Amino acid sequence: MEPLKDTRQRLLDTARELFYQRSYADVGVQEICQTAGVKKGSFYHFFPSKRDLTLAVLDESWGGFRESLLGNVFQPDVPPLQRLHRLLDMAYQHHKAMKEQCGHVLGCPYGNLAGEMSTQDEPIRVRVNRIFRELEAPIAAALDEAVAAGDVQALDTTATAAAMVAYLEGLSLMAKTRNDPEVITKLGPAMLDLAIR
Amino acid sequence: MEPLKDTRQRLLDTARELFYQRSYADVGVQEICQTAGVKKGSFYHFFPSKRDLTLAVLDESWGGFRESLLGNVFQPDVPPLQRLHRLLDMAYQHHKAMKEQCGHVLGCPYGNLAGEMSTQDEPIRVRVNRIFRELEAPIAAALDEAVAAGDVQALDTTATAAAMVAYLEGLSLMAKTRNDPEVITKLGPAMLDLAIR
Repeated sequence: MEPLKDTRQRLLDTARELFYQRSYADVGVQEICQTAGVKKGSFYHFFPSKRDLTLAVLDESWGGFRESLLGNVFQPDVPPLQRLHRLLDMAYQHHKAMKEQCGHVLGCPYGNLAGEMSTQDEPIRVRVNRIFRELEAPIAAALDEAVAAGDVQALDTTATAAAMVAYLEGLSLMAKTRNDPEVITKLGPAMLDLAIR
Repeated sequence: MEPLKDTRQRLLDTARELFYQRSYADVGVQEICQTAGVKKGSFYHFFPSKRDLTLAVLDESWGGFRESLLGNVFQPDVPPLQRLHRLLDMAYQHHKAMKEQCGHVLGCPYGNLAGEMSTQDEPIRVRVNRIFRELEAPIAAALDEAVAAGDVQALDTTATAAAMVAYLEGLSLMAKTRNDPEVITKLGPAMLDLAIR
């Protein structure tokens, strides 16, 4: 028998992948259990509902992604505007890899869930909303540094960071709709034009 | 007995509203028929499948929205950059009205479908993609005029229009995720900062 921890992790990994490749509503608990090789009773031992599983998927996925952002994109020794270019490049490499692996650009997993579920499930909306705010924070910090260094004119760094995340989400959606990761290389650099004063 | 035309129209109107308030997958043919007061056999007389209904909803909805855009936003006698501000204001008024009516900002109906369905239904992806291109056209034309008039520096008007639509879609998604139409008033005007050269 596998240890309990592996069962829970397998459910999380399976749900994350299936939701991302298709949608929340299209993937049921039964399919998640079958694909993960877990009995339905065992599922409900770990997660009272599909929503609870989804919140756990969001927490785990964002925890890992955030760590990777802080370690590879928002490093303090990288010049602040360069961090924003790294963020765009990370997005591009991700969409390109997904297209190569699945034949589809999958968009942003957080944006996908927000678009599908915000009117239907308040806890999921609130959780994704918090993730977007947490993504804005290191962007705003980079903008603060860029302003202090005189790299950019004074601006409302919090609002501009929110505008940049909105643009990134729009680009991910466009890349998915065109099924073309090059949307990011072509339109991405204009993110640095956004300035709210 | 109602004329056939009314039955088809009722199915289109009902599906458009239900999809927009919730999602594609969450709304089945059965519920659409019940809400519209139409028998299931009659549904399949008009639409071979839910996908066909959805393509018809997209065509009709975009036809009407495009006409309203050309008549109220992209009028040739309005200064070109003013048209872009009108577009933002139209988006804001729409999200605000939806929030007042439903308690939720519903986002963009095309973006919602693209996010949910692009990896799952190729004809729907292609149709929404075409709608985005058709929305970019009058924006690019306004930018062409603005460049010719010396209102803005020379830029790649086609790519910049695509960037602006991406930003609009991102803003709609953020307004939906925050459930706050004011995202558009706060972050919207930065759309005019976007410039791809």
